[in-house]
Amino acid sequence: MTSHTDHTEQSAVTVLGLGPMGRALAGAFLAAGLRTTVWNRTPGKDRELVGRGAISAASPEVAVATSELTVICVVDYEAVDSIVRPEAVTDALKGRTVVNLTADTPDRARSTATWAAEHGIGYLDGAIMTPTTTIGTPAGVFLHSGQEELYQRHRPVLDALGGTHTHLGEDVGRAAGYDLALLDIFWTAMAGYAHALAMARAEGITARELAPFAKGIGAILPPIFEQLAEEVDGGRYSGEGNPITSAVSSMAHIVHTSESHGIDAGVMRAAEGLARRAIGRGHGTDGFIRITDLLY
Amino acid sequence: MTSHTDHTEQSAVTVLGLGPMGRALAGAFLAAGLRTTVWNRTPGKDRELVGRGAISAASPEVAVATSELTVICVVDYEAVDSIVRPEAVTDALKGRTVVNLTADTPDRARSTATWAAEHGIGYLDGAIMTPTTTIGTPAGVFLHSGQEELYQRHRPVLDALGGTHTHLGEDVGRAAGYDLALLDIFWTAMAGYAHALAMARAEGITARELAPFAKGIGAILPPIFEQLAEEVDGGRYSGEGNPITSAVSSMAHIVHTSESHGIDAGVMRAAEGLARRAIGRGHGTDGFIRITDLLY
Ligand SMILES: NC(=O)c1ccc[n+]([C@@H]2O[C@H](COP(=O)([O-])OP(=O)(O)OC[C@H]3O[C@@H](n4cnc5c(N)ncnc54)[C@H](OP(=O)(O)O)[C@@H]3O)[C@@H](O)[C@H]2O)c1
Ligand SMILES: NC(=O)c1ccc[n+]([C@@H]2O[C@H](COP(=O)([O-])OP(=O)(O)OC[C@H]3O[C@@H](n4cnc5c(N)ncnc54)[C@H](OP(=O)(O)O)[C@@H]3O)[C@@H](O)[C@H]2O)c1
Repeated sequence: MTSHTDHTEQSAVTVLGLGPMGRALAGAFLAAGLRTTVWNRTPGKDRELVGRGAISAASPEVAVATSELTVICVVDYEAVDSIVRPEAVTDALKGRTVVNLTADTPDRARSTATWAAEHGIGYLDGAIMTPTTTIGTPAGVFLHSGQEELYQRHRPVLDALGGTHTHLGEDVGRAAGYDLALLDIFWTAMAGYAHALAMARAEGITARELAPFAKGIGAILPPIFEQLAEEVDGGRYSGEGNPITSAVSSMAHIVHTSESHGIDAGVMRAAEGLARRAIGRGHGTDGFIRITDLLY
Repeated sequence: MTSHTDHTEQSAVTVLGLGPMGRALAGAFLAAGLRTTVWNRTPGKDRELVGRGAISAASPEVAVATSELTVICVVDYEAVDSIVRPEAVTDALKGRTVVNLTADTPDRARSTATWAAEHGIGYLDGAIMTPTTTIGTPAGVFLHSGQEELYQRHRPVLDALGGTHTHLGEDVGRAAGYDLALLDIFWTAMAGYAHALAMARAEGITARELAPFAKGIGAILPPIFEQLAEEVDGGRYSGEGNPITSAVSSMAHIVHTSESHGIDAGVMRAAEGLARRAIGRGHGTDGFIRITDLLY
């Protein structure tokens, strides 16, 4: 009864790491009816999950031995290493598969894959692009990279997390590459928002007053991102509607007003510097996105 | 026949400055059937508008004398000053109204309003929050500040630009305050996008490949902005789903990978520095938006 055995194996999963995201992942697996084993460095984080039917393991080696597939999601790959590289855990993982949903760099993903291959451990690297609240809902966005065959084999378990799953290719560093680039957009935008709220506050404007308009700025970004991607891949930067010279003037106003209120303007100063360098190289009539070429 | 006179006056408008935005504004006024007089420092920019029925004025003083309302939209307030402060223009504006849709700082808006008051010129300060392509469409977003009565009087002409118009209050610097804060979000996000595209390129990922996911990041920003505004006004920064310690780890990965490819990471370095300062002050379990308090 191979199919029954397969089914049993596929319906079990281990989750290592029970930070906000690890707890969300384990919760979604439980909600989907999978036998879910959990472990976290600091004990006690599994209380609610155990109440919902999760199996609490006393050690990572015990945890990984209970399932064909282990999902690990901790703060970074140093934490991953400290959990999976001790001999007892590496031995227990032999012949099984790890899906690493921890965010880190493409290099770290590749070196972790090398370690896994050397120890006969199947390895897929992934990234989660949406907040904990989206896990188990259609809004979740998951990126994966590594062996296609391995990915297809474990897809049924991963699908229990809901959302959309995209396999980006066999280069195991690819998910981390996308992840970093997307986090770059997200955290830079957040830094801009925090700075904007500080400037607004200094001008007597509350965050709630600014928010409806800030949402409007957020809403215009997706189509702009799409159009600029065409320009960047095509190497043609039309500044017709909005040249860098105009952008840099706004940036200078922001730096000036920010600093006149004693507000650190380091983020915008750095962005303005890039814009001025692009102008200095003779690209003043191009759009601001021209700085992409200057950066790399 | 006062009402007829009023009507004639309200249906005429002058546009000073024919950069991409000035041309879009003049085009929308023409499309709405207003008698539209235009002027630009560098001649020739009005060719297409004149073909559509605009009146081309040889000087700004001639231009402003043809309409009750003048809309000015140039690169910054230095350019505004160089156009409207010469005596001939100031004299011609006496008793008329200027709506300044140029982006600049709240301070500059206030000092321009002072100059206008001293010369018997009605003055409203405004800002345009959306690209040229939105002008004359429902997607345009216009912010205004200054005397409410003056705003209501000229609203019919402003409405010809389409979109939504919001009067933010009688403090004439308010539109510029909102504008700067919103441009801060926009240009910081753009700097993040350009940097992300450069990093992706270094990792062999094209802009077109990244774009669908970048759009996804853009799409999650509006609800996040709204929720964070509540936290910031309330002074309660829940890092439960995503603490600063987790954010700073992503930021460090971005800086590391960026610089390992020789890509300037100045923007993210500045953002990471703010996050580390917040952690250093004991706010590591708060959300990243906590840096707003640190900034101001
Ligand atoms: N939260 C989100 O909305 C979100 C969204 C997308 C992606 N992610 C990614 O998901 C991953 C996990 O994030 P998170 O939100 O759960 O919070 P986190 O703060 O990034 O990670 C917390 C987890 O890491 C563990 N950990 C930290 N240092 C460790 C070490 N030296 N050894 C063993 N375990 C260690 C913690 O264990 P202890 O409890 O023992 O400290 C806890 O399980 C991160 O890579 C993050 O970037 C998160
Ligand atoms: N473009 C957009 O999508 C957009 C969106 C929202 C807001 N805005 C704001 O709208 C305003 C105008 O922007 P824009 O897109 O039209 O392009 P811009 O490059 O910011 O401004 C170009 C205009 O400024 C004039 N100008 C520059 N220096 C001058 C000077 N010293 N004296 C007189 N005129 C001078 C130019 O005249 P010449 O032709 O003689 O150089 C031209 O009319 C800016 O404040 C911008 O921030 C633009």
